[in-house]
Amino acid sequence: MADGQSSAQARADYYARIAAKHLSPLWESLHSLVPPKPAPRCIPFLWKYDDLRADVLTSGELISAEEAVRRVLILENPGLPGQASITQTLYAGLQLILPGEVAPSHRHTQSALRFIVEGSGAYTAVNGERTTMHPGDFIITPSWTWHDHGNAETVDGGEPVVWLDGLDIPLIRALDAGFAENYPSATQPVTRAEGDSAARYGYNMLPVRHDAPRVGASPIFNYPYVRSREALDQLYRHGELDAWDGVKLRYVNPATGGHAIPTMATFMQFLPAGFQGRTYRSTDSTIYSVVEGRGTARIGDQDFAFGPRDVFVVPSWMPVQLAALNDAVLFSYSDRPVQAALGLWRESREG
Amino acid sequence: MADGQSSAQARADYYARIAAKHLSPLWESLHSLVPPKPAPRCIPFLWKYDDLRADVLTSGELISAEEAVRRVLILENPGLPGQASITQTLYAGLQLILPGEVAPSHRHTQSALRFIVEGSGAYTAVNGERTTMHPGDFIITPSWTWHDHGNAETVDGGEPVVWLDGLDIPLIRALDAGFAENYPSATQPVTRAEGDSAARYGYNMLPVRHDAPRVGASPIFNYPYVRSREALDQLYRHGELDAWDGVKLRYVNPATGGHAIPTMATFMQFLPAGFQGRTYRSTDSTIYSVVEGRGTARIGDQDFAFGPRDVFVVPSWMPVQLAALNDAVLFSYSDRPVQAALGLWRESREG
Amino acid sequence: MADGQSSAQARADYYARIAAKHLSPLWESLHSLVPPKPAPRCIPFLWKYDDLRADVLTSGELISAEEAVRRVLILENPGLPGQASITQTLYAGLQLILPGEVAPSHRHTQSALRFIVEGSGAYTAVNGERTTMHPGDFIITPSWTWHDHGNAETVDGGEPVVWLDGLDIPLIRALDAGFAENYPSATQPVTRAEGDSAARYGYNMLPVRHDAPRVGASPIFNYPYVRSREALDQLYRHGELDAWDGVKLRYVNPATGGHAIPTMATFMQFLPAGFQGRTYRSTDSTIYSVVEGRGTARIGDQDFAFGPRDVFVVPSWMPVQLAALNDAVLFSYSDRPVQAALGLWRESREG
Amino acid sequence: MADGQSSAQARADYYARIAAKHLSPLWESLHSLVPPKPAPRCIPFLWKYDDLRADVLTSGELISAEEAVRRVLILENPGLPGQASITQTLYAGLQLILPGEVAPSHRHTQSALRFIVEGSGAYTAVNGERTTMHPGDFIITPSWTWHDHGNAETVDGGEPVVWLDGLDIPLIRALDAGFAENYPSATQPVTRAEGDSAARYGYNMLPVRHDAPRVGASPIFNYPYVRSREALDQLYRHGELDAWDGVKLRYVNPATGGHAIPTMATFMQFLPAGFQGRTYRSTDSTIYSVVEGRGTARIGDQDFAFGPRDVFVVPSWMPVQLAALNDAVLFSYSDRPVQAALGLWRESREG
Repeated sequence: MADGQSSAQARADYYARIAAKHLSPLWESLHSLVPPKPAPRCIPFLWKYDDLRADVLTSGELISAEEAVRRVLILENPGLPGQASITQTLYAGLQLILPGEVAPSHRHTQSALRFIVEGSGAYTAVNGERTTMHPGDFIITPSWTWHDHGNAETVDGGEPVVWLDGLDIPLIRALDAGFAENYPSATQPVTRAEGDSAARYGYNMLPVRHDAPRVGASPIFNYPYVRSREALDQLYRHGELDAWDGVKLRYVNPATGGHAIPTMATFMQFLPAGFQGRTYRSTDSTIYSVVEGRGTARIGDQDFAFGPRDVFVVPSWMPVQLAALNDAVLFSYSDRPVQAALGLWRESREG
Repeated sequence: MADGQSSAQARADYYARIAAKHLSPLWESLHSLVPPKPAPRCIPFLWKYDDLRADVLTSGELISAEEAVRRVLILENPGLPGQASITQTLYAGLQLILPGEVAPSHRHTQSALRFIVEGSGAYTAVNGERTTMHPGDFIITPSWTWHDHGNAETVDGGEPVVWLDGLDIPLIRALDAGFAENYPSATQPVTRAEGDSAARYGYNMLPVRHDAPRVGASPIFNYPYVRSREALDQLYRHGELDAWDGVKLRYVNPATGGHAIPTMATFMQFLPAGFQGRTYRSTDSTIYSVVEGRGTARIGDQDFAFGPRDVFVVPSWMPVQLAALNDAVLFSYSDRPVQAALGLWRESREG
Repeated sequence: MADGQSSAQARADYYARIAAKHLSPLWESLHSLVPPKPAPRCIPFLWKYDDLRADVLTSGELISAEEAVRRVLILENPGLPGQASITQTLYAGLQLILPGEVAPSHRHTQSALRFIVEGSGAYTAVNGERTTMHPGDFIITPSWTWHDHGNAETVDGGEPVVWLDGLDIPLIRALDAGFAENYPSATQPVTRAEGDSAARYGYNMLPVRHDAPRVGASPIFNYPYVRSREALDQLYRHGELDAWDGVKLRYVNPATGGHAIPTMATFMQFLPAGFQGRTYRSTDSTIYSVVEGRGTARIGDQDFAFGPRDVFVVPSWMPVQLAALNDAVLFSYSDRPVQAALGLWRESREG
Repeated sequence: MADGQSSAQARADYYARIAAKHLSPLWESLHSLVPPKPAPRCIPFLWKYDDLRADVLTSGELISAEEAVRRVLILENPGLPGQASITQTLYAGLQLILPGEVAPSHRHTQSALRFIVEGSGAYTAVNGERTTMHPGDFIITPSWTWHDHGNAETVDGGEPVVWLDGLDIPLIRALDAGFAENYPSATQPVTRAEGDSAARYGYNMLPVRHDAPRVGASPIFNYPYVRSREALDQLYRHGELDAWDGVKLRYVNPATGGHAIPTMATFMQFLPAGFQGRTYRSTDSTIYSVVEGRGTARIGDQDFAFGPRDVFVVPSWMPVQLAALNDAVLFSYSDRPVQAALGLWRESREG
């Protein structure tokens, strides 16, 4: 090999020559392509609901739910501008539906979760069944199932309903595996009574002839807050308190024991007033939605004060400590099942 | 080969000679060893609870729960005398526990289910948690878990409690794989609050760090009747009615979607008044315990009238038709998971 | 309770009375029904092939393969007389097929293995493919697959072929789950070239569209001795030697990683000359067939000297030590997958 | 809502205002975020080996293997410039190692495959075992295993060895889940004989105590071409020929039946001379490496003539037809297991 300068020139010439053949030298980028530890471009961030609420409601004046198909404000991670992503693999948005409106029926391979933030009386319909939405309810619209939303106009007018949408849009885009279709009419026909899925699958029993696929979403599609909150509360009263998590449960597909959604883990946790969590990190960037209470999330070296209905995001492998000023309940979701299915997921519980 | 007579003699001589070497000719028994279809020695039978109840209570005068360790009357299939078996693989018995008594703590590789038949106020303790038993509750004591039962004496004296025990004793015996141990004291220490398992696993959520073994019993150990009955009732009101089964659900291990017990399937079904089920058969001999209502089970060519608390058994591959005079609820159990795990289970739904 | 004598009488009277109702007192039999450790009725035993060979060949004079359907001498455990069982759950027999004979095609839910003991040139046909049998080959005829055997008459006459049949007959009988059918003709049509299954599944590759069932037998149906022996030999030369097992491998279903047969584990192991194995016990009673070499099996407190083609049986949980005088190869099989699928299997490796 | 113009202005103002809060309107991008079918940016492309070979060899003059760590020319998809990606989720590169060189030991969570393109005598070391590489061999270095490569200088000097590297770098980047470490020395110690893994896992047998993780790479790490080619050849001679695929097998993890690598499916297929494949499409963008023969890949509406050692790529859901002028063998890989694990994979076999 030649001396330093001419060698550098020789390499530059070579790089230019091979670039034309769509070749590039790995050794110039190896360190960034195979980093020693996760180096996410996604950054920690918190959206204060009080700052957004007016904007969400204003969207209801600018466009109808039917015209928009889905009237959603995307929460776009400042580290991933223009990508409609809150993390590298996941999407989050706040959807508004006003009394009398319908968000028309369609289906797509992207899986979606709906976590109700405010308002009652709207419904989500999946596979011919409608479920009424209340704050704190966790609802899923599985991959490739027809789904629509609506908000019935009531005698007293009804109220705007807002929920957090969580989808795996960036992941499906990375896999180039997305399909979508519109339903021929705005709403799908209702063929099953409300509560049917819950009765069939939600009582720690299953239909005799239910043959669960190895991969698949939960046949339960509404996990009501009243139940989830009760479970957390009982465990706390029984003495459960993890130094990192407080009291934390994950939503389950009762037909497999797996996650309720194949691509997204979903959790609800309780932090009692005064809780000071230890430092935790994991490789699944995680989105939190605050249900009740106030507290602080220390992410890396930044402190984020949170309150009801706020949304915040913790990037991959960044240290996080959760603390609660008063009794707090957090919902969260991440791509953990994807990483686990591929043997990639790691966590660290620190002092 | 020689002529018929001498050939027969030659074979007989040969059979005698080889018998001494612990050899026997397959061709003389092939048809019975490899039968064209199941030929169970177990027969259909029904035990009327009214005929047994006095005997069950008398056992309480003859021996204490503590002396008996388990004061149980075994329901022995008339086709399998002396084998403590209600089917070829399963055991059933009626256990009595009186106020103030304790059935001492032990563990064994045999899995057990307890289906409460009458009386309230007794408890079963598993893994440091006690659960109170009520009629219709389905309780499990998994393989190799310490368990004990007790019936607290109350101010008004309390009441005798009777439950159906279902175990896989004959199966474990056939596998020669049974182990058992006694706990050093009559009752195991209580280390968890009542309801802890239910809160942790019973709400379609699971602990974040729960790593379910590939094989294993449900972490829920009491499936209360009030919940199971509500699920059946809702489905019936929603229009569910199978021509063979009525409304039927199986109990589930929510951490795997499998059966609540690895060796025994467990079901609860509702038959509305007037229900006339079609003919069904399956290879898992099944034991039924009647919770509510009256009706008829036609098994092969025999009719068995059943009423509350009766127990009856349907042998492998025998046709059965269930009919209800008034709204009836049946609990049942069988070795279906064993057959399914080995690829052997078959069923037939007939006209 | 009364004094001892009258109490005993009262109990006896009671037992007689309830017996008529098909009830029996658990407390009189609890200890034997739920034993502290396995108490098999199956006993250790060894069949010397030299003592049986003449009897096996004589069977060829007494009855034809076609008349017998399967001309087999059952190896009946002396502890289980009249039950056609070598262990509580498994069957073993020596099958003879003479040149020019056919053992007609049938199928049954019982799974079978064929381990070739002597002679070459016979074939087993499964699913339209015939495979030629050589000593040491391990062949399977999965549950409910049509199978027949034949031994072509060659120019020089051919030779008798003997193999060990291993089936799960007693297990299927215990489950009352057996079905069987005869094929309309003596031999099934040959529709696939010899070696087809091996090419398709045996090269650590699988067909792109092969969708393996969760439960099922291996799609490979002949594991030739020449390959298995080579694997053992290589591992031994690389330094592998377990103090209990020597060099031991299990046959695998490459589509699942499970056992080649859902109900029977199958193993081949190599013990170098002078090997003195440590004491082992496990809950799966195991049948051994000696392929090469001489040695001793110490089972409980009995020593059994073994040589080529001998068959011996080790009952559940009985201590066994294997020793080899010269290089020895043992094939073995047991019901381990059944016990493992149910969470019941245990082993102990002792000093 | 206002008239068109002012409405448009109102929306634009609104969009600007909310952008500052890291919010964006879904309804403006819904169609591209949730496309009706895959719309990959990755394009079909073919690298002719003859055009690249000199560049590959020149890299050997510009930088040493040890300095480069991995001296690889990345094949960069023209539709994904600057991303070191051949598809949205996968990476491909040509690695050169000269006689006497070592590519130093490291490990990373990215899984890698090595498909040998030319030259013999180099080795890959994984987990203390070295395997010698020959053209057509398929070798894996599983996630987080130490691995190094070397090319021994022989008496006659030895020869340059080139292989295709396939890694899941873009996928792991999308998941932000990458970790990497260097080994303290250039080569890891050799602790096992060459061929050990093959003997232990490659003979359709497994070690008795091998407990395969639910997720994981194959314990076999070299699938030699001589064996894979033989399997294809036998199947073709037995009459196997699929109208879309020719004769196609996938590499398997024999301990699970899953893919050899959890994140990448790997295939080898044979197309006989004159083969004209039908139109196929699937959602897993696929990279092909030509082992033998010449032919044409029609991808979308473009024809790519291929010959030995060429590499080409078929994007997600793009129609592809393969045709062979003379007997051809193709190796290929894709992210199919990722899509399948998430329930997203689709294929279409057309006329």
